[in-house]
Amino acid sequence: MTTTPLAPGDTLGILGGGQLGRMLALAAARLGLDVAILEPEPDSPAARVAAHAIVAPYDDPDALKRLAGLAKVVTYEFENVPVAAVETLASLGANVAPGARALATAQDRFEEKTFLNAVGAPTVAFAAADSEESATAAVMTLGAPVLMKTRREGYDGKGQRWVEHAADAAGTFRALGGVPVIVEAPAAFVRELSVIAARGRDGAVMVYPLAENHHADGVLRRTIAPARASPETAAQAETIAIRILTGLDYVGVIGVELFELLGGTLLVNEIAPRVHNTGHWTQDGCAIDQFEQHVRAVAGWPLLPPSPHSGVEMLNLLGDEATDWRRWAAEPDTRLHLYGKREAKPGRKMGHVNRLRPL
Amino acid sequence: MTTTPLAPGDTLGILGGGQLGRMLALAAARLGLDVAILEPEPDSPAARVAAHAIVAPYDDPDALKRLAGLAKVVTYEFENVPVAAVETLASLGANVAPGARALATAQDRFEEKTFLNAVGAPTVAFAAADSEESATAAVMTLGAPVLMKTRREGYDGKGQRWVEHAADAAGTFRALGGVPVIVEAPAAFVRELSVIAARGRDGAVMVYPLAENHHADGVLRRTIAPARASPETAAQAETIAIRILTGLDYVGVIGVELFELLGGTLLVNEIAPRVHNTGHWTQDGCAIDQFEQHVRAVAGWPLLPPSPHSGVEMLNLLGDEATDWRRWAAEPDTRLHLYGKREAKPGRKMGHVNRLRPL
Repeated sequence: MTTTPLAPGDTLGILGGGQLGRMLALAAARLGLDVAILEPEPDSPAARVAAHAIVAPYDDPDALKRLAGLAKVVTYEFENVPVAAVETLASLGANVAPGARALATAQDRFEEKTFLNAVGAPTVAFAAADSEESATAAVMTLGAPVLMKTRREGYDGKGQRWVEHAADAAGTFRALGGVPVIVEAPAAFVRELSVIAARGRDGAVMVYPLAENHHADGVLRRTIAPARASPETAAQAETIAIRILTGLDYVGVIGVELFELLGGTLLVNEIAPRVHNTGHWTQDGCAIDQFEQHVRAVAGWPLLPPSPHSGVEMLNLLGDEATDWRRWAAEPDTRLHLYGKREAKPGRKMGHVNRLRPL
Repeated sequence: MTTTPLAPGDTLGILGGGQLGRMLALAAARLGLDVAILEPEPDSPAARVAAHAIVAPYDDPDALKRLAGLAKVVTYEFENVPVAAVETLASLGANVAPGARALATAQDRFEEKTFLNAVGAPTVAFAAADSEESATAAVMTLGAPVLMKTRREGYDGKGQRWVEHAADAAGTFRALGGVPVIVEAPAAFVRELSVIAARGRDGAVMVYPLAENHHADGVLRRTIAPARASPETAAQAETIAIRILTGLDYVGVIGVELFELLGGTLLVNEIAPRVHNTGHWTQDGCAIDQFEQHVRAVAGWPLLPPSPHSGVEMLNLLGDEATDWRRWAAEPDTRLHLYGKREAKPGRKMGHVNRLRPL
């Protein structure tokens, strides 16, 4: 690529108007870029900090045309963007990053794990099924208990169930909607880790330090970063991240969720082709955070080394927990981030805090 | 004040849509606040990152009514806001911070220096004049060479001239427009310093470390912070800042420009009742920057200690210098901030960089 896709004053398009889009928009603004948000909901958190807001379904042809007219580069804040929308944008001359291949891979759990193993990023054993019979066979092959997940959609623990006995496989398959599924052997992990990494349009890669994550009910509650980890574990994570980024010819920030097994081996749980909740600690722990790094990558700007300067405990504020904002706002060495969501539904991500400690 | 003026989800009003308004808006967004910008120019840098943009003169009654309807608290990014506009906003129920007293004091160089001396913040000797005769008398009393400045308006070196001989006083008075002036004895300073400080609605004060500033043609080019300074000098600056903040019953961030004389005595050059260019280093050198601190203060939130973590060399990018953005974007340990201005007029502040070093 000989010209810079985006220069200061140009417009970056973002599909999705939630908190990730909002934090991307704020990072883009710092670099002198304008932002255009496409999001079906009016009054979205990201739209309120963007120069342009298009309120329409993601696959609305007029909306996509308008977005492509505004923005030479378009990115997204969530991986369930319709691939057709990305193709439409590309046909209208917009450069979409991360590309369609990353999106398609991340949208299908079976494609994802198949890709991961192909590039040498280890995962649990898995099998695909698309009928009660094949689901039962998959459970018998892998040996219950196993996890059954829909191949597509689903996040934060939704769209998946444990199968305790092979005899339950058909019922679970039906309960998940009778759609194509993936059956996964359980990972006997001791910790959940993640690595945030970025790849630029020039192929340069930057890998952030490992983060340790704690979930409840399938939702991230807490990240400790940088995670305590041996140099060998850190090197394993870096190798995995680089293989994935290179294998997808990726442009942007990626979140890679990992299981650490007893003995230190890492397995990839899943990848998210976007900025990631487990990377929020970088906002206040690193010289350059995941949001600016992502904007730089998709804009064709140079990436910068993360240069961590503080240790961080990141806590998600879910639902009513954000009403405690006064407490967090008053705590020294704590940075409060609120997303501007109008309604504090139970479990909804309303904000987060980064509690700092010396490295 | 028993209730918090602004809670997350509320709207902060900002008079002025330039880079300071933009960086304030970004800080407010991080805290979950919406922003409404009132600015006469369309497509302003701040409006493009704000939920609401009102394009109208600052004293337009309908615009002020709309702003007061949106925002319970209104602040401003420059000190030449018409006091009448502030009074109108107050009469409409909006809380304007910093208050009318700070604004009126900062808008008139004679009132400003009179106030400063009254609270024990030393300045150069000065005298007011409003005619050729009184201007000549003032120059003779203070002894040429002196600086003659219009009492009102003027910034970045505009609206002021040196008077080398008392015989030139009348001519300089006419050249400055025949408006009321202040005549100032020159300060034999060895360095220009500044201190950024904040005062909350609860009276709490936070003072940032001293910064050392370098100007060219009256425009700030470079800030080094924290400045090398003796504990005595730092204590002097802190005392001065606290006297000013308390004397004005101030709410928000203030910039205090100082002259350091041989021997270490500090004189106040001028005060800016707003976030200040010499405080941009705090964005990347402190745990909490001047923009968030200002938003917290006017919103009635707790202030936090600045907690500097990095030394910073801040360079303003003026006019065409911003076309060098690729160079700055690629420099490690350098944070680039661009303002989204459409036209790079000569001398115009287009952005800045903060170059970091270990403390």
